Formats: sequence, C-alpha cells, structure tokens
Amino acid sequence: MSTSSLLDQLIEALRCLPGVGGKSAQRMAFHLLERDRERGLKLAEALRVAMQRIGRCERCRNFSENPLCNVCAGAGRDRQTLCVVESPTDLAAIEQATGYRGQYFVLMGHLSPLDGMGPEELGLPQLVRRLGEGEVEELIIATNPTVEGEATAHYLAQLAQAGGVRATRLAHGVPLGGELEYVDRSTLAHAFGSRHNAD
Amino acid sequence: MSTSSLLDQLIEALRCLPGVGGKSAQRMAFHLLERDRERGLKLAEALRVAMQRIGRCERCRNFSENPLCNVCAGAGRDRQTLCVVESPTDLAAIEQATGYRGQYFVLMGHLSPLDGMGPEELGLPQLVRRLGEGEVEELIIATNPTVEGEATAHYLAQLAQAGGVRATRLAHGVPLGGELEYVDRSTLAHAFGSRHNAD
Repeated sequence: MSTSSLLDQLIEALRCLPGVGGKSAQRMAFHLLERDRERGLKLAEALRVAMQRIGRCERCRNFSENPLCNVCAGAGRDRQTLCVVESPTDLAAIEQATGYRGQYFVLMGHLSPLDGMGPEELGLPQLVRRLGEGEVEELIIATNPTVEGEATAHYLAQLAQAGGVRATRLAHGVPLGGELEYVDRSTLAHAFGSRHNAD
Repeated sequence: MSTSSLLDQLIEALRCLPGVGGKSAQRMAFHLLERDRERGLKLAEALRVAMQRIGRCERCRNFSENPLCNVCAGAGRDRQTLCVVESPTDLAAIEQATGYRGQYFVLMGHLSPLDGMGPEELGLPQLVRRLGEGEVEELIIATNPTVEGEATAHYLAQLAQAGGVRATRLAHGVPLGGELEYVDRSTLAHAFGSRHNAD
C-alpha cells in the first residue's frame, strides 16, 4: 500500500498494541520516522528487553525481571497485610492512589471455570501456603466489583477463614465527585443501605 | 512506581508514540506482557529495522528503504502527471481513496518562513529540475486546504507556470454524505459560488 515495505511491516506490527487500528498505526509510524527516530530506537530496545526478560515474581506473581519483585523484596513494606488483586494494573492503581505499604498477591485473572481459570491457574495453592506461614494478619480482597470478581472474593474469604486470617473488602458506595443523579442504581442502593453516622 | 524497573522503562518509552499518555502506555505494556510477547518482539524488531533503514526516496522525497521508492521505481505508473503533497500521510490517503496512477512529490511540510521552512527545505529546487526535464505534463497540487497549504499551492502554481507545465488543484466543495446544515460557512459559500450544471 505505501511506498516502502519496511514501513508497511512497521504499521502492521504497531497494530498489536491495544486500541491501535490501521489509521493510528500509520500516524505513529510516520511520527517516529519524521521526528523521533532516536526515541523510536529506544522503544524498540525497551520492548525487546522487556519481552525477553520480564517474568513473574515468585512470591506475588506480579511482573518482575528478578526472582522477587521490588515490592516483595522491599525492606520497608509491612508483611502483615496482603492485598489480593486481579491484575498488575489494579496493583498499579492502588499503589498510585493509596498509601498502602503492605504486600500484594496478583491473581492474573479471576475464577472463571468456563474459561479454564480455576484456583490452580490463579495460584491459590501458593496463596494458601503463604497464609499458612502465619506472617499475614489481614487479607485485603481487592478484586473487581464484577460478578466474577465477587465470586473470586467469596472464594478468597473462605480461604482466609480456613487459614485463620482476617479478610477485608474494599468499601462500596457512591464515588467522590460527580452527582447522585448519575450514580447507577445498585451502587446508590448499596450506599443508601450502608449509610453511617455523620461525623 | 511499578514492581519492575524494566517495565517502568517500557511504559516510559511507549509514551513517545503520538496520542499515548501514561495510562495507555501502561495498558499497552501489560497487554503485550500478558498476552502477546511474540508480537511484542516482532514490533521491537520492525521498529529497529525501520528506524535504522528507512530513508528518503531520491526522486519524490517520500520514505523508502531503497534509493527509489516503490512508486518512483514502479514500471506501471504514468510519468506525465506529478502530484505534490505535504506529507506521506496525504500520499497514503490519495493512494487509498483514488485510482491515481501517476507520480508523487512529497514536500515534507509547507512554506512557513517563521519556522524556517523555505523553498529549499521543501525540496523545491529538485521539483523545478524535475519539471525542467520535460516529462511532466500536469502538476496536481494537493496541499492541505489551510492557510499555509494555500500559500504553498500558490507558490507551486507559479513554479509550474514558469516551467510551462499545466497546474491543477483539488476541487473544493461540500463533502459527500452528511447534511448541508453542518457544512462550515466558507466551504458552503465556495460550493455555492462554484455550482455547475446538473448532469
């Protein structure tokens, strides 16, 4: 289609990125070629190294190039609380938004038997062993508030109970900012039912 | 911020792509790591090769890894018409939308003396030489319908006149589809003034 087959290959390859279609891929390729070849080369190298060297942390299953990730290996982090999330993006969101200084466990998915995602695939035997070590005192269950996430949370709460560890969930309610008018019904009903004394 | 410094580097590097901010870069990095490492590696290689090997076509100034691009080297293309465009994206748009089978000349910008873009930077001496060769019979001026594009078009038309070559412009008017109500005023005024006999 274009005047260079290497350019065609680059445009095609860029389409592997999520949310990037033919038009955006073309714009990206031209932008890099016209203005930013040096950063394009840096991106190529960062991609190559990341794809080849990033594996999983042995302890929390998150992405890491070392056997232990920075959080698990970090000396300054509290080892009594363990926060279970579905994905590394959820972990990043919690790290960016909260002052949480404990440990994490990343499921890399949620229970979904039809898709072949059972307790084994989510690393739950590993989580059970960790709870059995006796160090963890609170298991913060931070799965997504979806049907699958809730089912996974229920399962995790049972594991915590069996291991004698206190399990907690993130609070549900109306989000900060915005107007009540636009909050979805079930969230509003939940927030109404869970009302508490005004401070 | 994240649990891996290679991952941080990848996210930072992805931000060199146009339209990609921190959140999208993170989503792209996680997507490639979780699901598509093979295509991620292919992208790294395509980027490296493209950044290092794609240069400019000697004849039309478009991107090409060979001295002559596919269009200029292509035997099946008419050498009597030459279409001048501002950028390779414009060339790609014309190739995709029209059945044009002539040659191109890519300015890689438009006249903009304040930004240091003069006739020299746009390769116009090279265009003048090409018009002087006597092969080109029609110069299709397809610069963008912006103030700078129009100024560039005016300059190009003068060059063509001096070289004794017929110069043509893309037709202005209301776009196909949509409603007159939403066409901007100056386009509508132009289309109204340039009305022609109904076929």
